[in-house]
Amino acid sequence: MIINWKKIAKNIYDELKINISEINWNKPKLGAILVWENSPSLRYIKQKNKWAKYVWIDFELKNFNNSVTEQELLNFIEKWNNDDEVSWYIIQLPLPEHINSEKVLNAIKPKKDVDWFHPENQWKVLIWDKTGFSPCTPYWVMWIFESLNIDLVWKEITVIGQSNIVWKPMAVMLMNAWATVISCNIDTPNIYKYTKKSDIVVMAAWVPGLLKLENINKNTIIIDVWFTVIEWKIYGDADFEKINNNWNLITPVPGWVWVLTVANLLKNTYKAFLQNK
Amino acid sequence: MIINWKKIAKNIYDELKINISEINWNKPKLGAILVWENSPSLRYIKQKNKWAKYVWIDFELKNFNNSVTEQELLNFIEKWNNDDEVSWYIIQLPLPEHINSEKVLNAIKPKKDVDWFHPENQWKVLIWDKTGFSPCTPYWVMWIFESLNIDLVWKEITVIGQSNIVWKPMAVMLMNAWATVISCNIDTPNIYKYTKKSDIVVMAAWVPGLLKLENINKNTIIIDVWFTVIEWKIYGDADFEKINNNWNLITPVPGWVWVLTVANLLKNTYKAFLQNK
Repeated sequence: MIINWKKIAKNIYDELKINISEINWNKPKLGAILVWENSPSLRYIKQKNKWAKYVWIDFELKNFNNSVTEQELLNFIEKWNNDDEVSWYIIQLPLPEHINSEKVLNAIKPKKDVDWFHPENQWKVLIWDKTGFSPCTPYWVMWIFESLNIDLVWKEITVIGQSNIVWKPMAVMLMNAWATVISCNIDTPNIYKYTKKSDIVVMAAWVPGLLKLENINKNTIIIDVWFTVIEWKIYGDADFEKINNNWNLITPVPGWVWVLTVANLLKNTYKAFLQNK
Repeated sequence: MIINWKKIAKNIYDELKINISEINWNKPKLGAILVWENSPSLRYIKQKNKWAKYVWIDFELKNFNNSVTEQELLNFIEKWNNDDEVSWYIIQLPLPEHINSEKVLNAIKPKKDVDWFHPENQWKVLIWDKTGFSPCTPYWVMWIFESLNIDLVWKEITVIGQSNIVWKPMAVMLMNAWATVISCNIDTPNIYKYTKKSDIVVMAAWVPGLLKLENINKNTIIIDVWFTVIEWKIYGDADFEKINNNWNLITPVPGWVWVLTVANLLKNTYKAFLQNK
């Protein structure tokens, strides 16, 4: 049974639209810096542009060609850091090899850091300081739980993953929400021992088909966070079709990931706008 | 069966002593700022002084009386931040109420931050950047595993706690070490379901006697991280006596906590000395 992510996303967008319509001084603006014109980045940026317009957030794309120097990029970041009209901005990754990505990402003003790359926002997740911005992917997972009215305090949640940007903040955010969290990595022996007993399983392993119907119980809710592309086909970590047919609540792969990630991006843009004003 | 923490601490001290004896330009120095002369702080400082001398680290105590202003404290911190001879320093908590502790702690130069209070060191734990300093308590727990030659990759570890300074970094450090981590909080229903099956249980709940012999299996290793004082007696979270008599490996409460925490403090002082030189 598919979790009604469209409704969840629509609620986020509609709430945002109302909030933003009530602002009577100026509009929030989301910026995007694109250096390398690879097609996933372009697709993602189109989505951002489309939904930003929908909620009346201005969107500005700054395009650099591949020969841009690190210093030119840093200068432009400095400009946007000091531009009161840009509430928040993103730097589309990957950057060309001649540019030190870490240095560039650390130059973003923490209060304008859309993708949770700045240390200041990272540690705020760890210490549960809600003035910081959360990484967009775990953030929408939390948003799903809220929309489904799930009280996490009494839930056992298995999180399977391997990354600094999704797996670890996801586990910490669930700990902050006072859930019981079982954190497995891709080498954990017999992960199914945990998934079979859990109320919720969050898959962020990037291993297609890792979770099958027989690895869960009849009440388990499955959040499949991202996807893997193999020969132009898109796979999640869970066997979506069989699990979906079996009444277990599950997020569909693909499609929805873009929409919810962008929704939270815009939600954070609004938050940044209020903090920076 | 008590984990031989004395041997572990002695190894740390002896290794440090050798490393420091080989330095031929100048000696590392640990500083301590004490404002409020409460007796636990004084006892802790005496331990630091004693063991610092043992490994040939200089120790300097700066004492302020209770009427010190926030600005005076910040000025002194600025002085030590810029003093090449002070490798690292601590600010003994709690501070008097008229002083903003967060502001004071954030003023410490990250590379001299002994107690892991600075954001920069906190996020380095989250992203597994080993140039940062680790919080001393979870750090010695990791040190115990290393000393016992335990390969964490194949272990299931239950961590029970509630704090930002021990529980969360402990869980994250174990995730970084690629263990399977079950994180329970003090409201988790039936924690014994997890403790009974785990290879290792780390108790940081501050609930005396929470873990009894019947809540573990015959191979479970128990790390009891801190202690609670009730009517002048000191209790750990685990029923030390019975568990100890039953061949389960366990850390003793009290006594050893001071020694290992101070050992890691001095280990970090040496690391800071090398980074700052």
